[in-house]
Amino acid sequence: MTSNFFLKKKIKAQSLFPKQKIKNNFEIESVKPLHLAEKNDLTFFDSVKYKTYAKNTKSRICITTDKLKAHLPPGLEIVIVKNVLFELAKALKTIYPYADVDYPDLTLRKPSKKKYTNVKFGNNVLIGKNVKIGKNSIIGANTIIEQGVKIGDKCIIGSSNVIKNTIINKNVVIQDNCKIGQKGFGFIPLKDKNFKFPHIGKVILEENVEIASGCTIDRGSVSDTVIGKNSYLDNQVHVAHNVIIGSNCMIAGQVGFAGSTRLGNNVSIGGQAGISGHLIIGNNVKIGGGSGVVKDIGDNQTVMGYPAVSLKDFIKKNNKNE
Amino acid sequence: MTSNFFLKKKIKAQSLFPKQKIKNNFEIESVKPLHLAEKNDLTFFDSVKYKTYAKNTKSRICITTDKLKAHLPPGLEIVIVKNVLFELAKALKTIYPYADVDYPDLTLRKPSKKKYTNVKFGNNVLIGKNVKIGKNSIIGANTIIEQGVKIGDKCIIGSSNVIKNTIINKNVVIQDNCKIGQKGFGFIPLKDKNFKFPHIGKVILEENVEIASGCTIDRGSVSDTVIGKNSYLDNQVHVAHNVIIGSNCMIAGQVGFAGSTRLGNNVSIGGQAGISGHLIIGNNVKIGGGSGVVKDIGDNQTVMGYPAVSLKDFIKKNNKNE
Amino acid sequence: MTSNFFLKKKIKAQSLFPKQKIKNNFEIESVKPLHLAEKNDLTFFDSVKYKTYAKNTKSRICITTDKLKAHLPPGLEIVIVKNVLFELAKALKTIYPYADVDYPDLTLRKPSKKKYTNVKFGNNVLIGKNVKIGKNSIIGANTIIEQGVKIGDKCIIGSSNVIKNTIINKNVVIQDNCKIGQKGFGFIPLKDKNFKFPHIGKVILEENVEIASGCTIDRGSVSDTVIGKNSYLDNQVHVAHNVIIGSNCMIAGQVGFAGSTRLGNNVSIGGQAGISGHLIIGNNVKIGGGSGVVKDIGDNQTVMGYPAVSLKDFIKKNNKNE
Repeated sequence: MTSNFFLKKKIKAQSLFPKQKIKNNFEIESVKPLHLAEKNDLTFFDSVKYKTYAKNTKSRICITTDKLKAHLPPGLEIVIVKNVLFELAKALKTIYPYADVDYPDLTLRKPSKKKYTNVKFGNNVLIGKNVKIGKNSIIGANTIIEQGVKIGDKCIIGSSNVIKNTIINKNVVIQDNCKIGQKGFGFIPLKDKNFKFPHIGKVILEENVEIASGCTIDRGSVSDTVIGKNSYLDNQVHVAHNVIIGSNCMIAGQVGFAGSTRLGNNVSIGGQAGISGHLIIGNNVKIGGGSGVVKDIGDNQTVMGYPAVSLKDFIKKNNKNE
Repeated sequence: MTSNFFLKKKIKAQSLFPKQKIKNNFEIESVKPLHLAEKNDLTFFDSVKYKTYAKNTKSRICITTDKLKAHLPPGLEIVIVKNVLFELAKALKTIYPYADVDYPDLTLRKPSKKKYTNVKFGNNVLIGKNVKIGKNSIIGANTIIEQGVKIGDKCIIGSSNVIKNTIINKNVVIQDNCKIGQKGFGFIPLKDKNFKFPHIGKVILEENVEIASGCTIDRGSVSDTVIGKNSYLDNQVHVAHNVIIGSNCMIAGQVGFAGSTRLGNNVSIGGQAGISGHLIIGNNVKIGGGSGVVKDIGDNQTVMGYPAVSLKDFIKKNNKNE
Repeated sequence: MTSNFFLKKKIKAQSLFPKQKIKNNFEIESVKPLHLAEKNDLTFFDSVKYKTYAKNTKSRICITTDKLKAHLPPGLEIVIVKNVLFELAKALKTIYPYADVDYPDLTLRKPSKKKYTNVKFGNNVLIGKNVKIGKNSIIGANTIIEQGVKIGDKCIIGSSNVIKNTIINKNVVIQDNCKIGQKGFGFIPLKDKNFKFPHIGKVILEENVEIASGCTIDRGSVSDTVIGKNSYLDNQVHVAHNVIIGSNCMIAGQVGFAGSTRLGNNVSIGGQAGISGHLIIGNNVKIGGGSGVVKDIGDNQTVMGYPAVSLKDFIKKNNKNE
């Protein structure tokens, strides 16, 4: 799952954290969350709610606080800091110097007909280095596909899209003017000049996904943003970084997801609903149009309102107010 | 009103529904809703609330259920099914094989100066086959106008727009980056692979309409999406399929309309309001910003809130809550 | 601060208002609000709430009503009308004939490498006349920068943006598909053909600003739209004309601002919140996601809800409703 979208510097643990007492000086492979990190990946632990992940992490180097360090298994190199996310952001910037801003892809060229046999291109399509496009796919006019993007077979991508840092599986449809794979809204607020958080994840669109016009789907920060198999997004939907949408979901127009929320399968969401960050939404959930979801929702629930409550409570509340 | 935007297969009633007992075997002309269908148009009847339309339809072939068929006039060829919309979708896919996905227009070319005299074009404009543009119109850079689109005189169309399946009357202004005429959000949900509902309607922008930047206006499914004379849409408005907006309406930024809703004339809607589908909103209605409209609204009403109620009730409700 | 983006006709006060008794016949320099107008600028006074500005204006010609004129200082040329904004719009249209619609820029060309040394351009970038771009800036593919736009050093502008009537300071980042500097939503409603209000202001992005993908930022009407130093906007944010956002603000995805609202510094706004027009929001204010702000907010407040109230009241209200 390692992303190859961002140039990575070779750097060893000791030189990344020169003021810390690192015993094992190995090269950092990547940066991953606690539950996804492998041995040589740098990880981070910033909230007690991840203590189970912390206990079981495979990583052997973790940024955390003095308070949280007791939850980590023995033998880990522990980097004690005051502000975990700030130190993480700085480490990411050192390892991945070009992931904090979407530097325009200057490798874009007209597609070579030799390379992309069995792909149809509209006018003025621009393709970056190492892009792969499956057979019988069509790419509409003025669309930009930046370096390293992979597109499966039989995909239909409309006009004026900008796609980067993304893996698209087969039979995916994207309409016009979508922006997919750009950096999400992440920074450490500092007066006069915020520190931009590098985002090294990607976007994965599973097979049979359909994305309507004018959507924005941000790539993951240190994991991925995923739209599950056969899920459909209507116009002007906004999906922030790290959001995971399950399969067979229906997301109506102008819905917005804040970062790191996770949806189950068969979820339907009405137009203009907003889903806060870091929530877990179960399977077979229905969320009414215009709702504001601020809490986790279990399987098979129907909710509505702002803040969203069960449909029964929503109706009761509105009757009482009449 | 028949759309010429989509390739139509010649197919007769009996071969379209081989398992049904069709007596008259005529060629299907088009597919229309009950009240718009002419003699040779296939129509459909899926809810008792359209029973008056059903009784008066001019069509002579209708998809419906065993339960609803009694409302249809005698002499009609009745196609009895369990799921009207699914059978309709399959019939549409057979008759119009390319209306279920927005296949990119591969006929786009630089505009011929000979053909479009008295039209000014910015750089890199792309025009499809059989496009008509009236005199003294201007089309901005990077805009794509797909095959068959008609644009009236004195229209001013900005940059980076994508316009398809659309009829634009005179004196219309469109700013930048709008997506007009693409397929709406319509499909029959099926596990692993939804059935995409073909949408064969178009978008009609009447004269003096103004559309600001970043709007999405989906074409109709089996009728049209219409923005009435002298109505203005602000930035990032989303208009779903089959919506009809009357004349002299003012729609502020980020408003969203779900499918098939109908607005009267002189309606004003504040920013970020959401209007549910299949509603009838009267003339001279005012809808406050941020409202969520879930019920029909009669003429001359002012409403606000989520769900939207009369302004009087909204104020009362909020005072009670303080 | 005079905008040079719009062609200005030389016109004297008496010929602009031939039916009024103008004594001093001087050339109108520009059109400005009461508090920004200099001696030869036309100004306007349409509401008693601006009476202090009226008393202190430096302008020597003002459009107002018979009722309001008493608040103006002696010696001013007073243009008495029934509808101040309509007369203002007509005067603007006479002085600035091309500011009522975004006429596409027909001066766009590929950037000259001689002129823009030390700037990197993606493919198909289009640049208008008199554009200035600072050193070490990068402009992504398919982006359009219209005439007169100024961009500072070290700016990173992504792909498929359309930027006009805008001043961008150094170190600004803009992602993809933004629309900046277009005309706002302003017109005098008239049956059959609204009168389009010319907007002669611009957009100013101060240094270190970051604008994510799919945002729309309208230029000012007779003043400017400003995004303050180090403020960040997430995807699909809509900023209407004349809005002023202070420094170090964080505006999450899909937030919308109606016209002429003014934000202080260090304001954070959650996703999908809507801010009504003509409000004053203080410093260090936090506005919850999905809120609808309809009243001014003092410094250091945290608000939430629709209409937005203090967080304490929001929680109380929701508990009472349970």
